[in-house]
Amino acid sequence: MKYSLQKMSEEKVFKDPVHRYVHVNDRVIWDLIDTKEFQRLRRIKQLGTTYLTFHGAEHSRFNHSLGVYEIVRRIVDGVFDGREKWNPKDRLLSLCAALLHDLGHGPFSHSFEKVFEMDHEVFTRQIILGDTEVNKVLRRVNETFPKEVAEVIAKTHANKLVVSLISSQLDADRMDYLLRDAYFTGVSYGQFDMERILRVVRPTEEQAVFKQSGMHAVEDYIMSRYQMYWQVYFHPVTRSAEVILTKILHRAKELYKENYQFQHEPYHFNSLFTHTVTLRDYLKLDDAVMLYYFQQWEEEEDLILSDLCRRFNNRDLFQYVEFTPSNQEMKKLLKLTQLFAKAGMDPEYYLVLDSSSDLPYDFYRPGEEEERVPIYLLSKKEELKELSRESDIVDAISGKRRTDHKLYFPADMLNDMSVHGREKEEIKRMLEWE
Amino acid sequence: MKYSLQKMSEEKVFKDPVHRYVHVNDRVIWDLIDTKEFQRLRRIKQLGTTYLTFHGAEHSRFNHSLGVYEIVRRIVDGVFDGREKWNPKDRLLSLCAALLHDLGHGPFSHSFEKVFEMDHEVFTRQIILGDTEVNKVLRRVNETFPKEVAEVIAKTHANKLVVSLISSQLDADRMDYLLRDAYFTGVSYGQFDMERILRVVRPTEEQAVFKQSGMHAVEDYIMSRYQMYWQVYFHPVTRSAEVILTKILHRAKELYKENYQFQHEPYHFNSLFTHTVTLRDYLKLDDAVMLYYFQQWEEEEDLILSDLCRRFNNRDLFQYVEFTPSNQEMKKLLKLTQLFAKAGMDPEYYLVLDSSSDLPYDFYRPGEEEERVPIYLLSKKEELKELSRESDIVDAISGKRRTDHKLYFPADMLNDMSVHGREKEEIKRMLEWE
Amino acid sequence: MKYSLQKMSEEKVFKDPVHRYVHVNDRVIWDLIDTKEFQRLRRIKQLGTTYLTFHGAEHSRFNHSLGVYEIVRRIVDGVFDGREKWNPKDRLLSLCAALLHDLGHGPFSHSFEKVFEMDHEVFTRQIILGDTEVNKVLRRVNETFPKEVAEVIAKTHANKLVVSLISSQLDADRMDYLLRDAYFTGVSYGQFDMERILRVVRPTEEQAVFKQSGMHAVEDYIMSRYQMYWQVYFHPVTRSAEVILTKILHRAKELYKENYQFQHEPYHFNSLFTHTVTLRDYLKLDDAVMLYYFQQWEEEEDLILSDLCRRFNNRDLFQYVEFTPSNQEMKKLLKLTQLFAKAGMDPEYYLVLDSSSDLPYDFYRPGEEEERVPIYLLSKKEELKELSRESDIVDAISGKRRTDHKLYFPADMLNDMSVHGREKEEIKRMLEWE
Amino acid sequence: MKYSLQKMSEEKVFKDPVHRYVHVNDRVIWDLIDTKEFQRLRRIKQLGTTYLTFHGAEHSRFNHSLGVYEIVRRIVDGVFDGREKWNPKDRLLSLCAALLHDLGHGPFSHSFEKVFEMDHEVFTRQIILGDTEVNKVLRRVNETFPKEVAEVIAKTHANKLVVSLISSQLDADRMDYLLRDAYFTGVSYGQFDMERILRVVRPTEEQAVFKQSGMHAVEDYIMSRYQMYWQVYFHPVTRSAEVILTKILHRAKELYKENYQFQHEPYHFNSLFTHTVTLRDYLKLDDAVMLYYFQQWEEEEDLILSDLCRRFNNRDLFQYVEFTPSNQEMKKLLKLTQLFAKAGMDPEYYLVLDSSSDLPYDFYRPGEEEERVPIYLLSKKEELKELSRESDIVDAISGKRRTDHKLYFPADMLNDMSVHGREKEEIKRMLEWE
Repeated sequence: MKYSLQKMSEEKVFKDPVHRYVHVNDRVIWDLIDTKEFQRLRRIKQLGTTYLTFHGAEHSRFNHSLGVYEIVRRIVDGVFDGREKWNPKDRLLSLCAALLHDLGHGPFSHSFEKVFEMDHEVFTRQIILGDTEVNKVLRRVNETFPKEVAEVIAKTHANKLVVSLISSQLDADRMDYLLRDAYFTGVSYGQFDMERILRVVRPTEEQAVFKQSGMHAVEDYIMSRYQMYWQVYFHPVTRSAEVILTKILHRAKELYKENYQFQHEPYHFNSLFTHTVTLRDYLKLDDAVMLYYFQQWEEEEDLILSDLCRRFNNRDLFQYVEFTPSNQEMKKLLKLTQLFAKAGMDPEYYLVLDSSSDLPYDFYRPGEEEERVPIYLLSKKEELKELSRESDIVDAISGKRRTDHKLYFPADMLNDMSVHGREKEEIKRMLEWE
Repeated sequence: MKYSLQKMSEEKVFKDPVHRYVHVNDRVIWDLIDTKEFQRLRRIKQLGTTYLTFHGAEHSRFNHSLGVYEIVRRIVDGVFDGREKWNPKDRLLSLCAALLHDLGHGPFSHSFEKVFEMDHEVFTRQIILGDTEVNKVLRRVNETFPKEVAEVIAKTHANKLVVSLISSQLDADRMDYLLRDAYFTGVSYGQFDMERILRVVRPTEEQAVFKQSGMHAVEDYIMSRYQMYWQVYFHPVTRSAEVILTKILHRAKELYKENYQFQHEPYHFNSLFTHTVTLRDYLKLDDAVMLYYFQQWEEEEDLILSDLCRRFNNRDLFQYVEFTPSNQEMKKLLKLTQLFAKAGMDPEYYLVLDSSSDLPYDFYRPGEEEERVPIYLLSKKEELKELSRESDIVDAISGKRRTDHKLYFPADMLNDMSVHGREKEEIKRMLEWE
Repeated sequence: MKYSLQKMSEEKVFKDPVHRYVHVNDRVIWDLIDTKEFQRLRRIKQLGTTYLTFHGAEHSRFNHSLGVYEIVRRIVDGVFDGREKWNPKDRLLSLCAALLHDLGHGPFSHSFEKVFEMDHEVFTRQIILGDTEVNKVLRRVNETFPKEVAEVIAKTHANKLVVSLISSQLDADRMDYLLRDAYFTGVSYGQFDMERILRVVRPTEEQAVFKQSGMHAVEDYIMSRYQMYWQVYFHPVTRSAEVILTKILHRAKELYKENYQFQHEPYHFNSLFTHTVTLRDYLKLDDAVMLYYFQQWEEEEDLILSDLCRRFNNRDLFQYVEFTPSNQEMKKLLKLTQLFAKAGMDPEYYLVLDSSSDLPYDFYRPGEEEERVPIYLLSKKEELKELSRESDIVDAISGKRRTDHKLYFPADMLNDMSVHGREKEEIKRMLEWE
Repeated sequence: MKYSLQKMSEEKVFKDPVHRYVHVNDRVIWDLIDTKEFQRLRRIKQLGTTYLTFHGAEHSRFNHSLGVYEIVRRIVDGVFDGREKWNPKDRLLSLCAALLHDLGHGPFSHSFEKVFEMDHEVFTRQIILGDTEVNKVLRRVNETFPKEVAEVIAKTHANKLVVSLISSQLDADRMDYLLRDAYFTGVSYGQFDMERILRVVRPTEEQAVFKQSGMHAVEDYIMSRYQMYWQVYFHPVTRSAEVILTKILHRAKELYKENYQFQHEPYHFNSLFTHTVTLRDYLKLDDAVMLYYFQQWEEEEDLILSDLCRRFNNRDLFQYVEFTPSNQEMKKLLKLTQLFAKAGMDPEYYLVLDSSSDLPYDFYRPGEEEERVPIYLLSKKEELKELSRESDIVDAISGKRRTDHKLYFPADMLNDMSVHGREKEEIKRMLEWE
């Protein structure tokens, strides 16, 4: 039998706390899960440093990837199957893209990518198209299949319906991560009625849409997303850990550039520092490798690197104050920078402005930087209506970007008045802190 | 104010998916959580290799330790407080012992301790009594306080009531791990009515006991424990991962003894191999360090070490068949061992007999190896009655040890008929496999 | 010991699916629950006809009343206790008012009160102040205590803080019913993080306020409330049942006025029909009595009464179409009324315009009909800030009343073309139905 | 299209708190739910008087009947469909029998049937076969279909597999009521892993069996059942309410036989008193009718009837002491009976011995009164193994009947020492009460 149609002799399941079970019947899916590139996702936390704020958030991207697959499986096999607008040929493509969409993520992606100027999407593509176990499995389906899967994940595939299942303002990726991150952190905000959304999703040529009778469930999802961003993803303590992490990587890179002699040769980082990372190098990176180096670097002679690593390992994070960007405040920041330098605390590492920003929902605005595909409702008369025109609540928050700025700094250093007491007094006064 | 009585200016909470919130009011507890030895528990998985079977089981010992503390806090502040048999002076001792009871755990303890002949309880004691941040905090309470905490955890403290809160057949440790492991794996078996148990627990001089009116909740707890052991903790796939892990450590140790030249010097393991581990060495060990080495060792020249590491990293585990120890079966095993050797698969590493065994509940049997303190019910007339005498169900399983034996081996190697085909045919026939 | 301070010898609990347990320690509370007036609430459904839409919604007002008490108990004993602005003398008053706030509710209050021009709040007052078991218990506290409790419930009591616990835009009443109705219907929309709200509620002289750090939990509560109104409370099928119920009562009253001879004398209704209901009469009314009569009336000769009762008992409800009040539409409605009459379907009973309207949140607007007390947040600097000024989302929906109109009619009658076929064709065309 | 094959144009769902949604696709099922006989189940509580102990237990038999249907639907459409041993022709029969299995239940069945010597199973049969709306729907399938459905429910149908889905030691009926009653009461004991059981159930010619790999889930179900019986169904307070209810009905019947002149003619009871109940009479009985009469009877002149009704309405129940049937105890009971009579408390109504008894699981014992069909496990080698031979825990409780006896009496009357003080003193002493 054709590989793409082969079924497991008996359905396999993974016990999953969010979806109860993840069901696998396709041989292709089973084989993909078994590849070493997919198993690597077990060693990468879904939420990076969030576990330092919400101790339950220790779940991996493996976890989430299975969840996204399961949601897409339920949509295509349970709802789309047999409907006019759905082509059963797209089924396997959808399932594979769902399973593999996060394949290129590295450890603590956010900070990592910023410092080393990389993009996990590029690596996702390389893993799918390069010389990997994943590629071998996909090629058994057919020669162009890896390319198709990569295009769906990159949102460049011609089949916009399939793309929308994985990447849109209401897709399987977001539905899974909201529910999953809510479950593991223990907060209730991420909950919404996914069962209802899965009952009302319908295929059109352009994208997945939602029967209007389910509008309230969609509203509730938008609200959950909003709450999770501000309650969990942008939690100030998580951002503090993120700031420190970024500064660790930044410092290590600077030291390397200055030919600093590391006590423990940072093999895994060499190609990162020189921006010459190969796929083989990249696949070796995971949370364990990072944490290993952070432990090693605690013992380095460079005081900044060892201090920042100690802070990360022992969760001895930075404090923060609110910051509103204005001419006056920017001048104050400049002054603070000088004071930090004077007080012996390198402002590059010890005075950090961090900004978080979220756009809860947007309709289509032609010509804007990031053209978002809006969510459409399907009325009883089969007309498509853009969500924010039907929902007062969504309209109210539509297109409104919310941004938050905070200034992070080490409270313990400021409180150590044995050196540079006068400068520190002035710093504290300016920060209006304590 | 005395350090032991200092309260936080405002109650601190940790969001916890199992107990909703973990509440901290005592300065001592807050300071203990902040120590680097306690933060290290974030880097050690509660259930070792179980995440390779139940992908949700990625939670850390940090998680669980807070949970045990929270349960003891609810008991002593919410139930015991004000009762005749309870001495408020024991409060802080109970809370600290609860929080720190697992402090000495290392990565993948089960396998680790077996191969390197170590005991995490010894390290718990050393961390509490040695030159550590934890010790500093405890000593601020008073000079003998560290010793007291260590004794409670070691079950040697004279205050048997406090000991029983942390270590008995129905203690805060077990209650938390059953609920927590059930939550993160997503299985329903671990659930029982802890709220009811916390309502009926009462202090006596000898131990915590339970009002008879709550007997059914206690029965339910015993059953949950039984089910979790066989459904989760002894899951055959988890045991397979455990087998491979043990064999990796075993192989590395053997190679070291044979003066094998490692490509990557295993610094963290040297003192383990020579049984000269110091507390300082020990505290550097965590899951990340293990996984780092397993990745490095995949590239070692030794085929057994690299194969086993590859299996662990990629979750390419051993298969198993049931095994019943009898003369006949033991002879068969001997024969199989020879055949494995002939077929080029070192039986030391590739044919492993693994046994799991559990005693769900036991009453007191004087003189036996492990004298278990039974669970007592408190009748309306204030009499103490041993649980199995009151409960038919508990009586039925009381003292009945259940043991399970399995034989683990690499199915892929057996299926590769390109070499030693004849021996492999015979092996498969003997294993009655496939 | 003074009655108001008497405690139960051992804490009593009620197993509650929403709050796990309801705890009773005060003798006064225990005695109030035991009164026949409070037990009567077991025979009155919390959500009236909603069980005909959501079959799980069969829970009683007894259920909810215990829940409101439990929330207030947790606030006053767990959060307010010991705080400067809280007077422990107000504790029992708060608990009693919480428990008794719905005491005067009758069966299917909404329709009932409309037809018979009554007000449950008047009866709550009468039960508390009149010759009842509840009054006897309250008077044992002291002579003016019944009056005080009645005033808190009526929102006329001078102690605004206590009033706000029971009746405000974020009170124990609403928190309990959202969670409880969500639980019993099985919808997820009513869930919000009450645990967090209970952690941040603080007493002020004027009302209970909420620490700003808990703002997101408050936002989430507002959204839950909004969703529950439109998803559950105003569900069109529930409104259909409500329309029929109202018309049954209306018809019975009309028949009585016309001296219609009932086959079964409606004893319980006589004083209702003549607007001479005594407290004694009122206390006999419950869901069972209503349903008993509806069964009896199915056998009455009056075709309208028997048809409506049959519809209610067998859940053979009216269909509906959307209706937008405009001059044109109102003319259409007039025309439809005439057509219904011509087609032999009395439009008074068989063509019903029903409107639902909700104001999710409002700040203070002096001089308006219903001056709502806004929700205040307490900043770190102890300033009070009105919620909608801090929250974008709440601001977006603040003060925006949403109204929905529907036209209800019996589809089966319209579809029976054996009589008045021509009129019915025209009706259907005008309704754009089918 | 044949009626039996007609599908709804769009799937209909009922929101259900236990199964999330109940799905209806078959026109036959939809029409059955719409009948007045099925709607009547909304007015009959699933757990009779249990709501007086667990206030959440106010759910109706309508609720449960939909649940049993949903479980059977999931089994036949989701698991059995396509398997060799399953005949798709049996599908509709299974669904209808599941939906209608409790159709003949009356109000407070347990007490009701005992006093009036009736059997709800007889009425289930009559409703299905008699002149009813249900019968009309079933006959549209075919002429013999009603008879077939009735036979499945009566366990006399030749198709034992279908029978076993509805009535066996592990059937859809029990699975639904354990989960549902646990949900509404709020106790955790009734929870078990139904999802797993539904994954391992398999059809055989004789009955539904369960793959051995799911044995632990089956064990857990047996334990849940055991706990629910003793924690909820046989709760001593519920039994007290049941005792009073039985005595009310008993007293009314006695009074009727003695030609007592009721103030309010008990129309609904006349045919019950004379054992001449027709189907038409029976269908008028529901909880509302019962509660209506209990309210009326509070005003009767007969002191016993009015006292018992008042007790039931106001939840003023009997107290109890344990009772162990032995010669000595029976003599004591005789003596107590005399003392009650002397003290002016008719022992027929005020001193009641009540016994509850449960057999958690049994294997097949030929020739015994109630031959239970055992639960079979299906091994990997396709052998059937009786559950108690494989499971230690089930073996331990298998065939062991547990019985509990209690003596109920009115504490308030005993405590009123103004009359018959001496006898009451002696009674209290003998009861060892207070």
